[in-house]
Amino acid sequence: MSEATPDTFVTAGFLVIGDEILSGRTKDKNIGFLADYLTAIGIDLKEVRVVPDETDEIVAAVNALRAKHTYVFTSGGIGPTHDDITADSIAAAFGVTIDIDPRARAILAAHYPEGQLTDARLRMARIPDGADLIENPVSKAPGFRIGNVHVMAGVPAIMQAMMDAIAPTLKTGKKLMSRTVDADVPESRVADRIRAIQENYPETLIGSYPRTNDGRFTTQIVIRARDEAQLEMATSAVETAVREVTA
Amino acid sequence: MSEATPDTFVTAGFLVIGDEILSGRTKDKNIGFLADYLTAIGIDLKEVRVVPDETDEIVAAVNALRAKHTYVFTSGGIGPTHDDITADSIAAAFGVTIDIDPRARAILAAHYPEGQLTDARLRMARIPDGADLIENPVSKAPGFRIGNVHVMAGVPAIMQAMMDAIAPTLKTGKKLMSRTVDADVPESRVADRIRAIQENYPETLIGSYPRTNDGRFTTQIVIRARDEAQLEMATSAVETAVREVTA
Repeated sequence: MSEATPDTFVTAGFLVIGDEILSGRTKDKNIGFLADYLTAIGIDLKEVRVVPDETDEIVAAVNALRAKHTYVFTSGGIGPTHDDITADSIAAAFGVTIDIDPRARAILAAHYPEGQLTDARLRMARIPDGADLIENPVSKAPGFRIGNVHVMAGVPAIMQAMMDAIAPTLKTGKKLMSRTVDADVPESRVADRIRAIQENYPETLIGSYPRTNDGRFTTQIVIRARDEAQLEMATSAVETAVREVTA
Repeated sequence: MSEATPDTFVTAGFLVIGDEILSGRTKDKNIGFLADYLTAIGIDLKEVRVVPDETDEIVAAVNALRAKHTYVFTSGGIGPTHDDITADSIAAAFGVTIDIDPRARAILAAHYPEGQLTDARLRMARIPDGADLIENPVSKAPGFRIGNVHVMAGVPAIMQAMMDAIAPTLKTGKKLMSRTVDADVPESRVADRIRAIQENYPETLIGSYPRTNDGRFTTQIVIRARDEAQLEMATSAVETAVREVTA
């Protein structure tokens, strides 16, 4: 397979759904998790959006992201309560109907004791027409995939288990490898040299990240590339530059 | 002032700029901080986007957010290195020129020892034409405001200090107050009752948030309202509902 096949670059968008993230009540843990996860399997997370529990906002964001990226992942809003409107919004985004899905109902019926599959719980079996279910080993109520969109729970433990269920079905690109060089100087001291190295190694992505440690400013320089030789050459150049400014 | 004036609802969008968040290298802390901060001062954070260090993506996101919301806040990409392209991208979004700003240059010149205001550091004085500076008490290089867009650093300590500098200039809405009711049952047990309460109190926003504690499922129900009487009545109704299902 040549480097130039489209499969080399597989991209993703992530949509976090929930008023509780935007009000600050809940601190999101899913963005960092998914970013690490996708990087590890060779998918580039290119965009994240956080939207409230409002149908129009969810529909607009899903439609924007699914048109742009290989895959879209969503978290949140698939529980049993009135504010869980993700499944209905995804159906609206795809222009398909939604109803109680017999496969999802069977999973829930097997999970809850006789007579306890209430109307509220049955809401969690509402799945857009044409979707595949995503297994939920933690609390059973499934997520689903429709087109390139993967709809998952917002509770981190459940979302993480769902990603493990999804991962084997995803096509992945060539992994972006990275090296990190620590520089014990503010980033403005190395900026000119790093810029020149970036220009010399256009196939690499060089990022410079300022840190504060006890009021001192230091810098982490991260070199990323899909080609190992390029990665090593650019990393050596960065290490030399850092030695020069700290000498 | 009547409840119906537009000032009652002041909304915001937040744009996080940086490859390092999307790759997972850096775990964002600014979304949760800004969500808490804006909620506390009566501004509704309605949307967050995270985009990479790419001009087109930054321009498109800034223009989408500034058309929709009272205020836009951005974090990241205003340092001295080649990957810091936020200021130039904001200028492009507004269709204005950008150059070394004499006010910003003076701040940096006063901060760095004689002869150490390098070209890289001077990059941090590039400010779009027509913008006001935002003070940076931590490391001096300023942020800026242009139109309704506030451009801040990505380092959390600096961004937080910049928000304190910005806050007195913002118009704020009537604060959304909240009450939390803990229910020691899975949310599907209370969902029907909570839905009915939401319908009875349409001026409140009732959210239901599932939790897992040591494998047990519990629920937090959060009631939010701008009117205190509505808030107390809906909260009482929720407390009664929770007592009924746990009795």
